Amino acid sequence: MPDFAEPLARLITEFKRLPGIGQKSAQRIAFHVLRAAREDAEHLSQAILDVKDKLGLCAVCNNISDSELCQYCRDNGRDSRVVCVVEEAHNIVGIETTREFEGRYHVLHGSLSPLRGVGPESLKIKSLVERIGQGGIEEVIVATNPTVEGEATAHYLAELAQRRGIRATRIAHGVPIGGELEYIDGGTLSHAFSGRQEVR
Amino acid sequence: MPDFAEPLARLITEFKRLPGIGQKSAQRIAFHVLRAAREDAEHLSQAILDVKDKLGLCAVCNNISDSELCQYCRDNGRDSRVVCVVEEAHNIVGIETTREFEGRYHVLHGSLSPLRGVGPESLKIKSLVERIGQGGIEEVIVATNPTVEGEATAHYLAELAQRRGIRATRIAHGVPIGGELEYIDGGTLSHAFSGRQEVR
Repeated sequence: MPDFAEPLARLITEFKRLPGIGQKSAQRIAFHVLRAAREDAEHLSQAILDVKDKLGLCAVCNNISDSELCQYCRDNGRDSRVVCVVEEAHNIVGIETTREFEGRYHVLHGSLSPLRGVGPESLKIKSLVERIGQGGIEEVIVATNPTVEGEATAHYLAELAQRRGIRATRIAHGVPIGGELEYIDGGTLSHAFSGRQEVR
Repeated sequence: MPDFAEPLARLITEFKRLPGIGQKSAQRIAFHVLRAAREDAEHLSQAILDVKDKLGLCAVCNNISDSELCQYCRDNGRDSRVVCVVEEAHNIVGIETTREFEGRYHVLHGSLSPLRGVGPESLKIKSLVERIGQGGIEEVIVATNPTVEGEATAHYLAELAQRRGIRATRIAHGVPIGGELEYIDGGTLSHAFSGRQEVR
């Protein structure tokens, strides 16, 4: 490891702690900051503190928000009868890019994992039950990850909704568009077969 | 583009301005910061300001330094007779990882580019001439980039050194170790042929 001046070495170490940034990228970014105008460095520095200070959770769906209600809960144009449940707030980003879903969201902030001691009380499930209890919700779409924890969470939530007479659905898992069968793993293919639909 | 809460959208924009970070990476890093402890975010934020506030240029070689002399100019174990000239301070990092060069450095902070209006007076060439004038330097190794600007700078510096009776050398350009001839561009191959050496 080359010897950097202390503040530079420290910045490189800090950048390396961010996801997807290794030694070379961290060095490149640190030198970029070093060369940038002080004003630009200040903006970046302040933006980092602001996300910690100015953001909280939406009072209804637990999405990240800078006001009491997030943009999706504030939007009167969205369908309140359908709620899509996701593990993390950033999952909403991917769903929103499809421009297909026009219902509401509910963010669990995790998934059930008995092995890691994450039970229903550690997740935002109580507030989902309350939302369902207030009436008006007709369908819960469970969009948790296709992992062991995500599947367990999906089953738990589906049972919880169905017991209250509400339709519970799970997003489809199968061969991704543009993917070639040759390169798809067995688990995905098995899901693709069991989830097959009539050609219409 | 999905709709993020303002502070989050701003942080994503700030991260996207860094080299090698696109929309997806910026989102991922911003969500990481959002989930991190406030203390960690503070460390990152402070480290960014510190590189702007606590670092300056070495009084001798213009390398980035947190004191008057950089670590290479302070190190009495290095050979003061050989000076390696680089375009940017971060070029030193790559050279140091080889552990082959034990001389001193000189950072130009750019390369000659008449088209962009960068003449010798815009670079740290005057201080190099002063170093040479003080005596003791026997060889100047020019390690500027193999670009048009880097080559022009190399020739300028070589002439400048030779006029003062000092040996001027250029690092070799050719086929990189592990590279296959099949994939090497013509310019590099041409350099490799003209720079061929006796097999010993």
